[in-house]
Amino acid sequence: MNLHECKNRLEKSIKLMSEMNISTLLITPGPNLRYLTGYKAKNLERLTCLVLKVDESPRLIVPELEKLAALESGIESLEIKIYTWNEKENPYEKLQNRKTSGVVAVDSQMNASKVLEFQHLLNKAKFVDAKSVMEELRSIKSQWEIEQLVIAGKYIDSVHNKIKDIVVIGETEKQLAKKISNLILEQGHETVDFAIIAAGKNSASPHHEPGENTIKENDVLLVDVGGTTPTGYCSDSTRMYVVGKCEKQFEDFYEILKNAQQTVIDSIGVVQTCEELDQIGREYLDKNKLGQFFIHRTGHGIGMETHEEPYIVQGNRKTIQSGNAFSIEPGFYIENKYGARIEDILIRTTNGIINCNAQTKNLVYI
Amino acid sequence: MNLHECKNRLEKSIKLMSEMNISTLLITPGPNLRYLTGYKAKNLERLTCLVLKVDESPRLIVPELEKLAALESGIESLEIKIYTWNEKENPYEKLQNRKTSGVVAVDSQMNASKVLEFQHLLNKAKFVDAKSVMEELRSIKSQWEIEQLVIAGKYIDSVHNKIKDIVVIGETEKQLAKKISNLILEQGHETVDFAIIAAGKNSASPHHEPGENTIKENDVLLVDVGGTTPTGYCSDSTRMYVVGKCEKQFEDFYEILKNAQQTVIDSIGVVQTCEELDQIGREYLDKNKLGQFFIHRTGHGIGMETHEEPYIVQGNRKTIQSGNAFSIEPGFYIENKYGARIEDILIRTTNGIINCNAQTKNLVYI
Repeated sequence: MNLHECKNRLEKSIKLMSEMNISTLLITPGPNLRYLTGYKAKNLERLTCLVLKVDESPRLIVPELEKLAALESGIESLEIKIYTWNEKENPYEKLQNRKTSGVVAVDSQMNASKVLEFQHLLNKAKFVDAKSVMEELRSIKSQWEIEQLVIAGKYIDSVHNKIKDIVVIGETEKQLAKKISNLILEQGHETVDFAIIAAGKNSASPHHEPGENTIKENDVLLVDVGGTTPTGYCSDSTRMYVVGKCEKQFEDFYEILKNAQQTVIDSIGVVQTCEELDQIGREYLDKNKLGQFFIHRTGHGIGMETHEEPYIVQGNRKTIQSGNAFSIEPGFYIENKYGARIEDILIRTTNGIINCNAQTKNLVYI
Repeated sequence: MNLHECKNRLEKSIKLMSEMNISTLLITPGPNLRYLTGYKAKNLERLTCLVLKVDESPRLIVPELEKLAALESGIESLEIKIYTWNEKENPYEKLQNRKTSGVVAVDSQMNASKVLEFQHLLNKAKFVDAKSVMEELRSIKSQWEIEQLVIAGKYIDSVHNKIKDIVVIGETEKQLAKKISNLILEQGHETVDFAIIAAGKNSASPHHEPGENTIKENDVLLVDVGGTTPTGYCSDSTRMYVVGKCEKQFEDFYEILKNAQQTVIDSIGVVQTCEELDQIGREYLDKNKLGQFFIHRTGHGIGMETHEEPYIVQGNRKTIQSGNAFSIEPGFYIENKYGARIEDILIRTTNGIINCNAQTKNLVYI
């Protein structure tokens, strides 16, 4: 845990709550809890919950069984008081004597069972999604966070750098995915978040699940991989490979895609909003007759989660601000033929744009 | 996907909804969706949701991007209609023209952000936790499910069987956890769910996170491991190891624990309720002066999740029924000294009790 970062985040969240008229913030295990306190708690059916109030000191409700783990995370150095409950107690009842009314913001990822319990308990309160607070905080990366994302980018670049050496014709997508997952761990990540390997026609499915399909001579190969570093920051990068040779038409389309992606990157800081940025690549692909095959948004924010604010998508009128980190990943998907995507992580800073990924964007022939 | 099983489960859930006066069941990606449909969907911020109504055929709301994955899961053979939405649409609005009132049951694991959206949309409905339906279904295992749990048990037994060969003095808990995670995958599992390795004093923390602590001569070693098989069923087994020699007192305490665990197992089918079963081991340990160190419940149900109903815990007055599968895992935890736990998965069937784990419960000296 980075004490300085967490203290800062807790202070800012209280300030935002006050501005937004939120009386209570309830945060359960997941990226928000880790972001605010450094505590990487297990998301169990047993209730662990950070309770932030504008006018009280922060508390962590924690099952007795998890107390040691909570202490090990160093949460007490943040002046968060720990309240434990044992197997015979109802942790929600522990909150009951505290009258909470007004607006209660619940962690976006809190499980429904817990949301319904809290709603039952605090039946005078109005419940809202805590994303209003948490997204505002998390979407603006600090200098330290930017460094973490740059490190994550280097890690995933070195995974892509080794892929050409491990592709074996005749192996299944699943077998390759496993080897790549090992690479993700070897190259600095603490966990593998995903390894999308789509060979041949499967590359036309943007979120293909690696399966028993074998890699064949002259397949195109879409490799979209990501992991989380020990400090909790995510990498995410897509590159395209060709096993042998591929159709001239695919190469032509790919060149268009590469230019489209670069055009979007060059427009960060030039256009204002997320949806305008989304539109740039779309128009470029439209002009080059690939627009109809670009069936998803241009990108997503990234940080302690692979997908977070700001989303680079039509309808999102938020301004791209200094501190925003997000993917730029246009693609084309032609059913029963092939597909392609190129993805980098970009960060807008006060000193210009940082591209976290430096791996070649040319087709890599294996 | 097992078509026969899923059809059966869908039919039963509709029947239960009708009995419980639930008009609508909303199931998002996770174990419930996989249980009902075989579809192992990603839990994305984009809405995927199975909508079950008593008097309509089932529908699956799915992002356009995930349509192929949904089709590949074979969901259409269950006569579930797929409704896609694209990046420009609001999937909740797609539901709006359907008037839903009465009682709406939401997936226990649905994210709060989705619960709040549904509550906003269906503001005439009463929201309840879908666990009333899903737990009733999932806690009674079919013959096929029992077979899957027995297979999972064999897989994790063979992991424990190999542990004595890979423990190296001087390596960290984390390093051992990594080797054991590889073993979990090699021995038939599709994913590693957890690998709790606690050496020496750390064994006194029931849910210790493997860390930089190195394994030393004469350490006791608690190894609690589990994974999920390709058909989606979980294993979970704890055994104790000793690196060299250990205190005589630990060995004495361990013998008591072993007898306590066996006494609980022998009481399945003899006592009626979950809390009575929980009490058996507690009393045994109390009588032998270890009761104060047994700080958690006796066990948890297991199936497509490691922790599910029925929980073997004080306050749970449910009867243990034929088809229930659950862990029996008493332990003792003496702070700053050592701890121990023994855990098997048991299934009550009409033909007696099945123990899914056959690995020795004696201390294994390495």
